[in-house]
Amino acid sequence: MVRVGIVGGSGYTGVQLMALLLHHPDVSLRWVTSRKFEGQPVCETFGALRSLTDLAFTKYSPDLLGEVEFVFTAVPHGQAMGIVSEAVQHGKRVVDLSADFRFQDVALYEQTYQPHTAPELAGRAVYGLPELFYEEIKGADLVGNPGCYPTSAILASVPVVRKGLWDSRSPIIVDAKSGVSGAGRDPNLTTHFPEADEGLTPYKVLAHRHQPEIASILRKSSNEEGLVYFVPHLVPMNRGIVSTVYLRLKEATTLEKLQELYETFYRDKPFVRVLPAGKTPSSHHVRGSNYCDIGLALAPDGKTAVAMAAIDNLIKGASGQAVQNMNIMAGFEESAGLMQPPLFP
Amino acid sequence: MVRVGIVGGSGYTGVQLMALLLHHPDVSLRWVTSRKFEGQPVCETFGALRSLTDLAFTKYSPDLLGEVEFVFTAVPHGQAMGIVSEAVQHGKRVVDLSADFRFQDVALYEQTYQPHTAPELAGRAVYGLPELFYEEIKGADLVGNPGCYPTSAILASVPVVRKGLWDSRSPIIVDAKSGVSGAGRDPNLTTHFPEADEGLTPYKVLAHRHQPEIASILRKSSNEEGLVYFVPHLVPMNRGIVSTVYLRLKEATTLEKLQELYETFYRDKPFVRVLPAGKTPSSHHVRGSNYCDIGLALAPDGKTAVAMAAIDNLIKGASGQAVQNMNIMAGFEESAGLMQPPLFP
Amino acid sequence: MVRVGIVGGSGYTGVQLMALLLHHPDVSLRWVTSRKFEGQPVCETFGALRSLTDLAFTKYSPDLLGEVEFVFTAVPHGQAMGIVSEAVQHGKRVVDLSADFRFQDVALYEQTYQPHTAPELAGRAVYGLPELFYEEIKGADLVGNPGCYPTSAILASVPVVRKGLWDSRSPIIVDAKSGVSGAGRDPNLTTHFPEADEGLTPYKVLAHRHQPEIASILRKSSNEEGLVYFVPHLVPMNRGIVSTVYLRLKEATTLEKLQELYETFYRDKPFVRVLPAGKTPSSHHVRGSNYCDIGLALAPDGKTAVAMAAIDNLIKGASGQAVQNMNIMAGFEESAGLMQPPLFP
Amino acid sequence: MVRVGIVGGSGYTGVQLMALLLHHPDVSLRWVTSRKFEGQPVCETFGALRSLTDLAFTKYSPDLLGEVEFVFTAVPHGQAMGIVSEAVQHGKRVVDLSADFRFQDVALYEQTYQPHTAPELAGRAVYGLPELFYEEIKGADLVGNPGCYPTSAILASVPVVRKGLWDSRSPIIVDAKSGVSGAGRDPNLTTHFPEADEGLTPYKVLAHRHQPEIASILRKSSNEEGLVYFVPHLVPMNRGIVSTVYLRLKEATTLEKLQELYETFYRDKPFVRVLPAGKTPSSHHVRGSNYCDIGLALAPDGKTAVAMAAIDNLIKGASGQAVQNMNIMAGFEESAGLMQPPLFP
Repeated sequence: MVRVGIVGGSGYTGVQLMALLLHHPDVSLRWVTSRKFEGQPVCETFGALRSLTDLAFTKYSPDLLGEVEFVFTAVPHGQAMGIVSEAVQHGKRVVDLSADFRFQDVALYEQTYQPHTAPELAGRAVYGLPELFYEEIKGADLVGNPGCYPTSAILASVPVVRKGLWDSRSPIIVDAKSGVSGAGRDPNLTTHFPEADEGLTPYKVLAHRHQPEIASILRKSSNEEGLVYFVPHLVPMNRGIVSTVYLRLKEATTLEKLQELYETFYRDKPFVRVLPAGKTPSSHHVRGSNYCDIGLALAPDGKTAVAMAAIDNLIKGASGQAVQNMNIMAGFEESAGLMQPPLFP
Repeated sequence: MVRVGIVGGSGYTGVQLMALLLHHPDVSLRWVTSRKFEGQPVCETFGALRSLTDLAFTKYSPDLLGEVEFVFTAVPHGQAMGIVSEAVQHGKRVVDLSADFRFQDVALYEQTYQPHTAPELAGRAVYGLPELFYEEIKGADLVGNPGCYPTSAILASVPVVRKGLWDSRSPIIVDAKSGVSGAGRDPNLTTHFPEADEGLTPYKVLAHRHQPEIASILRKSSNEEGLVYFVPHLVPMNRGIVSTVYLRLKEATTLEKLQELYETFYRDKPFVRVLPAGKTPSSHHVRGSNYCDIGLALAPDGKTAVAMAAIDNLIKGASGQAVQNMNIMAGFEESAGLMQPPLFP
Repeated sequence: MVRVGIVGGSGYTGVQLMALLLHHPDVSLRWVTSRKFEGQPVCETFGALRSLTDLAFTKYSPDLLGEVEFVFTAVPHGQAMGIVSEAVQHGKRVVDLSADFRFQDVALYEQTYQPHTAPELAGRAVYGLPELFYEEIKGADLVGNPGCYPTSAILASVPVVRKGLWDSRSPIIVDAKSGVSGAGRDPNLTTHFPEADEGLTPYKVLAHRHQPEIASILRKSSNEEGLVYFVPHLVPMNRGIVSTVYLRLKEATTLEKLQELYETFYRDKPFVRVLPAGKTPSSHHVRGSNYCDIGLALAPDGKTAVAMAAIDNLIKGASGQAVQNMNIMAGFEESAGLMQPPLFP
Repeated sequence: MVRVGIVGGSGYTGVQLMALLLHHPDVSLRWVTSRKFEGQPVCETFGALRSLTDLAFTKYSPDLLGEVEFVFTAVPHGQAMGIVSEAVQHGKRVVDLSADFRFQDVALYEQTYQPHTAPELAGRAVYGLPELFYEEIKGADLVGNPGCYPTSAILASVPVVRKGLWDSRSPIIVDAKSGVSGAGRDPNLTTHFPEADEGLTPYKVLAHRHQPEIASILRKSSNEEGLVYFVPHLVPMNRGIVSTVYLRLKEATTLEKLQELYETFYRDKPFVRVLPAGKTPSSHHVRGSNYCDIGLALAPDGKTAVAMAAIDNLIKGASGQAVQNMNIMAGFEESAGLMQPPLFP
């Protein structure tokens, strides 16, 4: 049984993280902080959690660190770096759900986000995608939990890239579609129901901050310097991301070989389900779960692959993956507390 | 051709009103005001209207009144009363879409909303429900456009009440369901997509300000002092209201007689469609139109009637009805500019 | 560990039941039958369950009964009665999710549905609403699992009725709203996405078969012969029911007393959450869970109560309640396998 | 005033076509056929059209042709070819909304769909995309109305292709997203509300029959033999298509030049709205209208363009475009009966 705390629990990753941790057999959730809701019972803010916890939101203070072994930080980028540094200095193990520790290349982080106040720490943080970095996560004291889009885009494309099959003269195109919960809990016009409902809208075209995150991780998996183009779209649904990834290959292959490549790559990964040939993934089949479903198609000339990945953006794309990382760090079963089936329909 | 202006055009009733007026054969829209978007082209604020108008939002000033014969006020209650008074004093004819001139009983208005600065004007304003007050509207200089819920609730129940069939010892129960656009364009947590989507939630139970509006108009249609209980629900859809109204009757009747009562009552009313016995109305069949569809059912003992009315809350429940009122006031065909078919599916 | 089988697993109650039972700590799911999908792996039919089970749908035969202690029947009414009889004769304990064993008054069943081939068995089956009939369920060999609408309508109104507060001269009005999954998995025009989306539609007004089910259970809880009027509405969402129940009271009361009545009534019931005064329940806060949230309001004269209940129609309204019944019958913790938090947002 | 008839009016293109034609100032709709609903009043099948027409569905027979000048055929591919031939032989002018006359290359049609019984007629039919083939449409007796996806994909990419800027060594990638009404009115499991709602799903990946349609029209606009890869996705909304098109360019350009190219290309085209740089199109802004909104982005190296086009699939993607074609053929204003503003929100 490990004791954990959440810094910044009032957003959607926060409420999802609480739901998972409260239900986790080996975890005791000791405190959850929120500046906005300080003093308010969690179940006042989130009626869904009524009767499941007596916790009230508290204000963050370093004193809280003494009560726990693990800390999850779910505050916005920029706000996380200071708290994370403090927690690590106090000897705590941390999973940070912000973007602050996803880039070992601090210059790239600063170019994408803002100046970093803990660059050395960033340089040695581990990127928390267990399907790629299991061993590093195991021993890490600080894990930067991946972005939601990058989780799906990287899992869809990395088998091809690692195997050296990608023709890097052609950019990888990631056309991604996300439910609205990915935009967070702060109301604004874009996420106002009447504006989002019945609307399908591309946004931040080639300009989203997840583009360099995807590119930098794929680059680590390859010797090639290729481009990644990323176009996200807002979809009128609550949860779910589907990333449709277009990859040009160096040499023609067959769908059978492609399937085999992916099946081999993800053998023994409990949360990646490579679908049989001809099946396409759907956000509907992973909702409420930590699964990433991957489907594959190949152009007739065998040289353009389409890899599609579906996740629940708040679980495999955020809080579920954070718990998965904690499980690995703590020596628990990787899937502990994460095996609830998808909610279908 | 009448020249019209809109005060307060940046909300959903505003954009719907512009769409209707720009398409109206006998109207020239001269100006639209907005404090928030002053100076901004309308099509920047509302991409849907791109290429349909060159207007930019302007700031309201009494000087604008000289350019028009008709004024529509679509600002929040409290803000409307002053501007409306001014416009009427300048000899303009006004349709006010706020609540400020819906109550001839000013004490009831003040109890429900706030102090009124133009009580005499309120006392002589006409309630703009053309199916009940056509003649009064015709000669009015000021029409208080009904609320969205009251439009549906009153049209569903008034034939029974006017005919003296209601057993007023039993309250009229109005269980109403509305799409989210009824909550306006200001983002807040309740209307944030992830909170509203896939949720069905009652709110302001027996405490909504449309309850006294419904009751006061029904009372005008009756000699009886009965109660109206009103419970609204938020529904995960954009447009549409369905009000399900439960009425106890003094004496047992038959469904045939009930149908006949409604069909007679609404004969020659171009926007009320009484459905054949056995059919139920759906928000889906009136969306994008000025229709109110009414369906009827009767309990086996013949003494409890269920009358259901469906409207598009932004059209028959707001801007379409405002145009209908203007048509009547201006001597146009009642349905001028309002005959576009519902958008189905 | 009990061994269980599901007869009729290809609908939404079936897939939800499988999801719950596969995740249940004390259950081993041995077989699932389907005529339509016989021989097909479950995860071909339901992609959401991929990797969670190796079962394939099998054809029902009495031989299967030997492998299990418990049987869940999730076939349509009429089809269930024969299989249930057979299973009970083989000494199995059965939870039937159809309507066939919800009426101890067989004449009422036959009037509502069709002729019954196992009337004695129906007469001694227990109505599986644990909040009312816990002790009877404990010892039962056959439980008729309640309908989705009745679960919410009865839980919302029974404290008032049992306490003798209902003025039975006024009908109880149940205005209910349901997500589309309640209509089952067979495609038809009503549930075709473009027809249901963005539509709110009443149906089977005062003519739904759940009306006599609600009335008969409330009558058991009372000495009064009153009427129940039930109007269901189809809502454009997947899961969730909210029943808004209007009850006239014999004598005026206060909201405090009403709250206390409900809180006392549901003390120690793990799945009913009576909300604090002023809060309304939402389908959004119970989705994916076995909770029933209840909110209360009272008219100013203290004589009309509005009780609102929200459930997930596939869980507390069907499969979750079936598991709750099995837990009680088997002597497990009532909430075993049912404590996953709601999925919010 | 032209007299028109619709063959096959019981689907979504049919009901949309009726709505447009009934509201068209220069058209008299004489008959609508349907085998399935023969004899049934149109407003029984489509409650939305209640009070707008007294027509009943009739059975198709060549005798009907005598009553009209124009025929719209909205039956499935394969069924259209015979009726169209017959109508043309009777001297009628025809807009066919099926796929049967979209391919002048009959071999390609047959490879994509099925054997063609009127190959010469197909060879001389005009592809009804007025922004490209206005002059040909004007004089045509038979127009093959484009598919919904092709309309958006071609309008998004053709300015680049016609100008010779496309580097045809790289395939054009069309990642398209469609609302569910595009799948027609026949219920099936994929379009069953609980399966489609909250789900985002790619389908017919690189295998949809609109792929060769797009490619063949783009090829006509170019001297190059390049590939088009097309991946459609089903989106949980009713109407709307957004096609996100990725085009590699021969030489680097600037966003300003790209904008200018599109603005020039679509100058004087009443239904294409090229958005200002930095804006993205949304299905929400074109719903209920005949507009196609186009937004543009360019990669930093100036060599990959992203062109995004949004349409209402039932209007610009089907019935509105059919009316636009009829307008041109009949010598009416191109936009006659098509200027209703989008329905927003």
